Amino acid sequence: MSDGAVKFTLDEREIPTEWVNLMADLPGQALPPLHPGTKEPAGPDDLAPLFPAGLIGQEVSAEPAIEIPEPVLEAYKLWRPTPLYRARRLEREFDTPAHIYYKYEGVSPPGSHKPNTAVPQAYENQVAGIAKLTTETGAGQWGSALAFACRLFGLECEVWMVGSSYDQKPYRRSMMEAWGATVHRSPSDRTEAGRSQSEHPTGSLGIAISEAVEVAAQNPDTNYSLGSVLNHVLLHQTVIGQEAIAQLAQAGEEPDVVIACVGGGSNFGGLAIPFVRRVLRDGAKTRFVAAEPAACPTLTRGVYAYDFGDTVGLTPLMPMYTLGHDFVPPPVHAGGLRYHGDSPLLCGLVKQGLVEPRAYRQNETFEAAVRFARAEGIIPAPEPAHAIRAVIDEADAAREAGEARVILFGLCGHGHFDLSAYDAYLAGKLEDPEFSEADMQAALERLPDAPALV
Amino acid sequence: MSDGAVKFTLDEREIPTEWVNLMADLPGQALPPLHPGTKEPAGPDDLAPLFPAGLIGQEVSAEPAIEIPEPVLEAYKLWRPTPLYRARRLEREFDTPAHIYYKYEGVSPPGSHKPNTAVPQAYENQVAGIAKLTTETGAGQWGSALAFACRLFGLECEVWMVGSSYDQKPYRRSMMEAWGATVHRSPSDRTEAGRSQSEHPTGSLGIAISEAVEVAAQNPDTNYSLGSVLNHVLLHQTVIGQEAIAQLAQAGEEPDVVIACVGGGSNFGGLAIPFVRRVLRDGAKTRFVAAEPAACPTLTRGVYAYDFGDTVGLTPLMPMYTLGHDFVPPPVHAGGLRYHGDSPLLCGLVKQGLVEPRAYRQNETFEAAVRFARAEGIIPAPEPAHAIRAVIDEADAAREAGEARVILFGLCGHGHFDLSAYDAYLAGKLEDPEFSEADMQAALERLPDAPALV
Repeated sequence: MSDGAVKFTLDEREIPTEWVNLMADLPGQALPPLHPGTKEPAGPDDLAPLFPAGLIGQEVSAEPAIEIPEPVLEAYKLWRPTPLYRARRLEREFDTPAHIYYKYEGVSPPGSHKPNTAVPQAYENQVAGIAKLTTETGAGQWGSALAFACRLFGLECEVWMVGSSYDQKPYRRSMMEAWGATVHRSPSDRTEAGRSQSEHPTGSLGIAISEAVEVAAQNPDTNYSLGSVLNHVLLHQTVIGQEAIAQLAQAGEEPDVVIACVGGGSNFGGLAIPFVRRVLRDGAKTRFVAAEPAACPTLTRGVYAYDFGDTVGLTPLMPMYTLGHDFVPPPVHAGGLRYHGDSPLLCGLVKQGLVEPRAYRQNETFEAAVRFARAEGIIPAPEPAHAIRAVIDEADAAREAGEARVILFGLCGHGHFDLSAYDAYLAGKLEDPEFSEADMQAALERLPDAPALV
Repeated sequence: MSDGAVKFTLDEREIPTEWVNLMADLPGQALPPLHPGTKEPAGPDDLAPLFPAGLIGQEVSAEPAIEIPEPVLEAYKLWRPTPLYRARRLEREFDTPAHIYYKYEGVSPPGSHKPNTAVPQAYENQVAGIAKLTTETGAGQWGSALAFACRLFGLECEVWMVGSSYDQKPYRRSMMEAWGATVHRSPSDRTEAGRSQSEHPTGSLGIAISEAVEVAAQNPDTNYSLGSVLNHVLLHQTVIGQEAIAQLAQAGEEPDVVIACVGGGSNFGGLAIPFVRRVLRDGAKTRFVAAEPAACPTLTRGVYAYDFGDTVGLTPLMPMYTLGHDFVPPPVHAGGLRYHGDSPLLCGLVKQGLVEPRAYRQNETFEAAVRFARAEGIIPAPEPAHAIRAVIDEADAAREAGEARVILFGLCGHGHFDLSAYDAYLAGKLEDPEFSEADMQAALERLPDAPALV
């Protein structure tokens, strides 16, 4: 059936009807988040000022599968199912016997995987009678996804956009405004948190989160919405991996390795979790590679500790790899990967050795992105360019081993708003910032006082 | 089967295997193009300096169907078949009983319908041993499509980009360069034609065509490639309408009216031609509406006459509606519609009354585009916003008639590179330029001396 096939499509009736909750399959008890004041385990009540009951229930659920509400499925039809491609031209470009597949999430209106969770988040807030959502955005992918989702469900949307991305990607702001959202450059002077960070004009996801959380916490009709990190966000993204399983079955293949980039972990989790569950349940032999920027190497260089999700310290403490909550990463173009921490769920998988993290420099990821674009056509966002760089490693290894290994990677978004970075790369003027070990060590000294993790 | 359905998809094996050549179904003899010097009918030999034999054969073919070469089908799989959507949210927004469908071509890597013809053009030039293609581009959709196609078939690509678009849409240039093309602002100082037009710094498609044709004519290993107007270009685009017929059959519907925007006619022709053939052959009752900018109202205000395809007068004379080959339209953001003429094939259909042309102002088209984006998610390019504006008229008429009319329109590209125009519109600062009747009259006085058309 798959002889020569390039694109594996599904009908809209084949959109998954459930999300996969990996929490139910993980051995032992998950480490709880801790209240930022008391350092006691934080429960559902502690999340209520920011999130609606529907999402809190998903966040703490122990059920292995959670049904997708009908209005969410209806909205998913605007772009799902997304295509799975066999990258035959890229295989020739890389001169590898590997079979390379990519799941392309850039067909959504905002151009990334982010609306997979923005839509159910907007829906559950609408159900709860909330009028407005606040959020942060790095590269703008998340902010535009939430702007789009809020428009579908009739909510207002207010976005704090990380300063360096706000300057690099003005059209992402325009896109959010076209869908009716309000956008502020972060750090802004509209919040205590923003004013306290004015010495960091490039901003960071951690600072922007503090601003959005502060506004949501102060207004009863306003909730906060997070685009990654939390369990319910990774949960919503599992439509990606479920569709990929169905599409690889069309191709008659099983992946030897699944690769995705990691900022807060939702893109990686969304693709990988359904495959991880098969490893846990059925003993499948799949490997997993998480690709991150060398300028913000949370999984490869961070410490495993309880830390705040935001810079100022308003969120619960979460058990995760961290570079320190007030570490400000260099302004690489992969704005969606500039986060000091990572999803506790993903960090647990890394800690257990189920997921192998790798870090790549900015210029080598753009080199990989240009090779991909010239072979396959699609111009990748800088974030999944990290995954493509890891694919090169795996394709090389397959050639050296002489094995037709099956590589699946997540192409989580297009680069239509990142072309100034391509311009700089093609002109040989793209910066290749180094990670500052000293800055991280200083940030780690300011870790909150909390139980140590082993 | 279509109860509640939003998206109608096809498998890659359902990509059409033939192009529809309407020339075979039109009554009488088509008016020939004329040699620009002798004013005698121009034959295949006159096209040979610019085009490869494969494309010339398609240009003059009388066969009703032309088989799509296998390498072209293989490349089409990178994005085709494209989805057909039932715009259920837009129907509610417009409060209409009409069923509104749109065929979305923005899923191609360059983001529009243009690669449908760029790919076979690059392929036929590769077969003919050509090393480089030159072309013009308005909004950048065509130039980026040709850059993409040239990369797939190993050809060099050199693009003259209309000055006003070059300034408005810098990321379109970056996109072409990411695929390896060279891009010049037109009018440039690299050609005689460009130097002769330096008093028109905003440029026009006509001027940019002159520059690209001049370079191709002077270099034996270089051919010229045109993104619209010619028969073989419309031919290649008929994959759109053929897929739409199959997808509407899934929905169990027949269109009462088919709507698309018109610059040179390839988007309109690609969607409409397979439906026009059903009108000619089977007596189907479909109406056709061609939407154009009021700032460049070729079909609604032009004269039907033999005129040059370019500004300087290097191309054959073509029988078409024209505003005069040296008319320079105001720099509206729908750069792809700023053309003084139109496809002779389409003009013939307008002349016969089969196609109804309508012209819309820039601000009313952006108003329609924002309403569409906020209902359906996808942010349209300024060109198809003209079609959406015409859909509003048809949706209103269906409401007034109390009829569930079926409207099909072509959403030929996304607006990811047009967000500065959305910015201006949302800020109330978008210009709404008037058509200059005086400029057109002056241009018409410079029409070439050629047989009159009736």
